[in-house]
Amino acid sequence: MIQVPQGFYFAAHGAGFKYTGRDDVACLASDRPAAAAGVFTQNVFQAAPVLVAREQLQKRQTAQAVLVNAGQANACTGQTGVDNCRQTLRLAGEALEMDSADILPASTGVIGDQLVMDLWPQAVRGLRTSAGQAGPLDAAKAIVTTDSFPKIAWRSVTVGGREIRILGLAKGAGMICPNMATMLGFVLCDGAIEPQLWQTMLARAADRSFNRITVDGDTSTNDCVLGLANGASDVTVDTATPGFQEALEAVCRDLAYFIVQDAEGGTKVVRIHVRGASSDQDAEQAARTIAHSPLVKTALFGRDPNWGRIVAALGRSGATVAPESTSVWMGGLPLFENGVPVDADLDSLLAPYLDRREVPLEIDLGLGDKSAEVLTSDLTLDYVRINAEYRT
Amino acid sequence: MIQVPQGFYFAAHGAGFKYTGRDDVACLASDRPAAAAGVFTQNVFQAAPVLVAREQLQKRQTAQAVLVNAGQANACTGQTGVDNCRQTLRLAGEALEMDSADILPASTGVIGDQLVMDLWPQAVRGLRTSAGQAGPLDAAKAIVTTDSFPKIAWRSVTVGGREIRILGLAKGAGMICPNMATMLGFVLCDGAIEPQLWQTMLARAADRSFNRITVDGDTSTNDCVLGLANGASDVTVDTATPGFQEALEAVCRDLAYFIVQDAEGGTKVVRIHVRGASSDQDAEQAARTIAHSPLVKTALFGRDPNWGRIVAALGRSGATVAPESTSVWMGGLPLFENGVPVDADLDSLLAPYLDRREVPLEIDLGLGDKSAEVLTSDLTLDYVRINAEYRT
Repeated sequence: MIQVPQGFYFAAHGAGFKYTGRDDVACLASDRPAAAAGVFTQNVFQAAPVLVAREQLQKRQTAQAVLVNAGQANACTGQTGVDNCRQTLRLAGEALEMDSADILPASTGVIGDQLVMDLWPQAVRGLRTSAGQAGPLDAAKAIVTTDSFPKIAWRSVTVGGREIRILGLAKGAGMICPNMATMLGFVLCDGAIEPQLWQTMLARAADRSFNRITVDGDTSTNDCVLGLANGASDVTVDTATPGFQEALEAVCRDLAYFIVQDAEGGTKVVRIHVRGASSDQDAEQAARTIAHSPLVKTALFGRDPNWGRIVAALGRSGATVAPESTSVWMGGLPLFENGVPVDADLDSLLAPYLDRREVPLEIDLGLGDKSAEVLTSDLTLDYVRINAEYRT
Repeated sequence: MIQVPQGFYFAAHGAGFKYTGRDDVACLASDRPAAAAGVFTQNVFQAAPVLVAREQLQKRQTAQAVLVNAGQANACTGQTGVDNCRQTLRLAGEALEMDSADILPASTGVIGDQLVMDLWPQAVRGLRTSAGQAGPLDAAKAIVTTDSFPKIAWRSVTVGGREIRILGLAKGAGMICPNMATMLGFVLCDGAIEPQLWQTMLARAADRSFNRITVDGDTSTNDCVLGLANGASDVTVDTATPGFQEALEAVCRDLAYFIVQDAEGGTKVVRIHVRGASSDQDAEQAARTIAHSPLVKTALFGRDPNWGRIVAALGRSGATVAPESTSVWMGGLPLFENGVPVDADLDSLLAPYLDRREVPLEIDLGLGDKSAEVLTSDLTLDYVRINAEYRT
C-alpha cells in the first residue's frame, strides 16, 4: 500500500533508551549513495545531532542513511553530547557496513540528558538484524515520542512513462514527557537529482509546509527535515520535471497537517488565511500572531466565534492594518466587515462550523494583494495537563 | 487607611450594564482642574474611549474626572461607539456639573457590543448621588470585571515638610467572560505639576511597571493608564523633587504586580530577569519570549524546574545569545552554567522554591551589561477553562 521508493530499506529496534515495549531507534537507508539535503531549526541552541548533521552536509552533499533515536534529544549537552552523537554514527556505520560520514543523525526527547551510551552497541546490533525486515511504518512508529499516530505520506510522479516515488516520515509535537517539542521530518526519493537542486527543492517544500504550522510557537532545539534522493528509479529530476516539486510539497504538506492534527491536546486544525496584505511579511506576521494568541486558541477550543480576539490579535501584530478595511470570516461566514461587526445571530449560524475538526479563519486586510496561510491547533485543557505534568 | 490625595472624590454606581448586584460605573474626580496625562494601548484597533480620551488630551492637557464603566469595552464599535462614548461624557458632565471636555472616558468588557445607552441617564444620576460618599475602594471595586480582588496602591512624598500623595487604582485581566483582557490604571496625585512633565513622568512610570508585565501577550484594545495631578497639596513637583518619580513608579509597580497576581487562572508570579545582554532590546526580547512561552508557563504551573524550555525559548527569541556564555537560575539555584547543565539533583533542591507564590528566573547571557525584567503568570488549567467558556 505504501509506495516505497526503490533502493531504500528500513530498520527499527527497541533499545530501551527511555521507552519499553516499543521500538525507539530507527534507520532509513539507501542501498547506494543518495543526494542529501537538510533544513534545520533556527533555534540558537541547536542539539548535538543538528550540529553534526549540518557539519556532515557541509562536507559532502551525499549520504546513505538517517539514524534516529526517540526519548533523548541530546540537546544542551555540550561537547560530550556531540562526541556521543558521533560515536553512535561510528557504531551504526560498523553494524550496517557504511561509512559513518554517510549517516545523518536525528534525535528527539528530553533536553539536557546525555545519551545512554551503554545501550548503543546493542541498539545497532538490533538495527542490523532488522535492516530490510522492517518497513517504513515500523520506522515511523519507532521515531515518535508521544504522538498518537505514526505519520507517513507519499506521492509518485510519472515522467516519460517512468515513476519517481517520494516517501515522507515525520514525528510531531506530543509532550506528555515535557521537553519533547521536536518536529522531525524525513523525505526519501528514488529520483536522480543533483544535490544542490535537491537541497533547493526540499528547502522550498519545507518552507511551504513545515514552516507554515505552529502548535505553541516554541521552536525546538532539534527540529530538522532531512532528504535522501538515491536515483534508484533511474529517472533524472531537474527543475523542468513536471509535477515533481508539487509532489514533494504535497508529501511535506500532508506530514505537516498530520503534525497539527496530532498537536498535544489539540481538538482542532485551524487554517488561518490572511489576504489583502501590503507585503508578504505583513501577511505572515498577522497570521502567526493570530495562530499564537492564547485567547484565540482557547476560544476555538471552547467553540466560541470570538472574532473580537482575532481582531485584537491583528491589531497588536505589528503588521500594517487599517481598522476600516479589515474583514474577518470564520467557517466561511462573515463576522466583521470593513471594521464593523456583522449584525446577525452569528453564534447559532457558526455552531455547526465550530463543531468540525478543521476550522478556516479568513482575514482580508484590504490593503494589497499579498497573502499567507498558517495551520495551528487550539489551546486545550489537555495541552496544559500534558505539559504541566512533572517529567519524572 | 488609604491615603487619598487632597481635592479628589469618588462616585460608584450599579447601572446594570452587564453585572447585577454590584457597582459597574465609577467616577474619579477632582474638585479643581488637574494636569492630565495618558498612556494608551498600542493595538491598532483602539476602543472608542481610547480614541476619545486621546483626542481630548491632545486638545487640552487638563481634566477634572475619569469616567469608567465595566462590562462593555466599546471596542470595534465604529463611529456609533465613538458617538455613544461622547454622549456618556455629556450626560456625566451635566450630572456632575463639569465641562464634558474635562472628563476622560475608559471602558472594559466584551469587544463588539455597543454601550446600552438607555441605562446611562440613570447611571449618571446614580453617580451624582454617590459623589463624595464613595471612597477609592468603592471605585476600585466598580471597575473590575472578573478580577478576584480590587487593586489599589498609594505612596506619599514629603517635600519641605509638606506631603504629596499619590493614589493608584487598576483593573486586571480576568476573563471568565471572554474578551475582557483590558488593563486599566488610574493615578491621582495632589502635587502641582506642569502637564507636560506629568505626562513624561507617568509615561516613564508606566513603562517601568505596566509595560513590564504580561499574562498572555494579548494586548487589549482598551488598555490605558490615566493620571490626574490637581495641585491641591499646594506642593509643586518638578524634575528635581526628591523621591517623587520613585513614589509614582512604586504605585504603578504595586498595581502591575497585583494584576499579574490576579491573572486569570494564575497560581504564580514569575519574575524573569535577564542580564548580561548586549543591548536593552535584546534583554527585553529574551525576557518577553520566555514570558510568553506556553511550555515555560505550563512547566511552572506543574512546578517542574524545566530549564530546557527556558533555554529553548531563549534560543528562538531573536536576541543575540551564545550557548557557551548562557547561564540560568531558578529560585536562586543554578540550573545551566555557561552552556552546560548543572550536575546535581536539582529537582529535589528546587521543590520548595517552586512551591512558592513568586518564582524568580534569572538568565545571564554573558555578553554585555544590559538587563530587563518582566513579570508574568503561569499557564494553568483554569486559564483555559476561563477563556474557553462560551460568552453567553
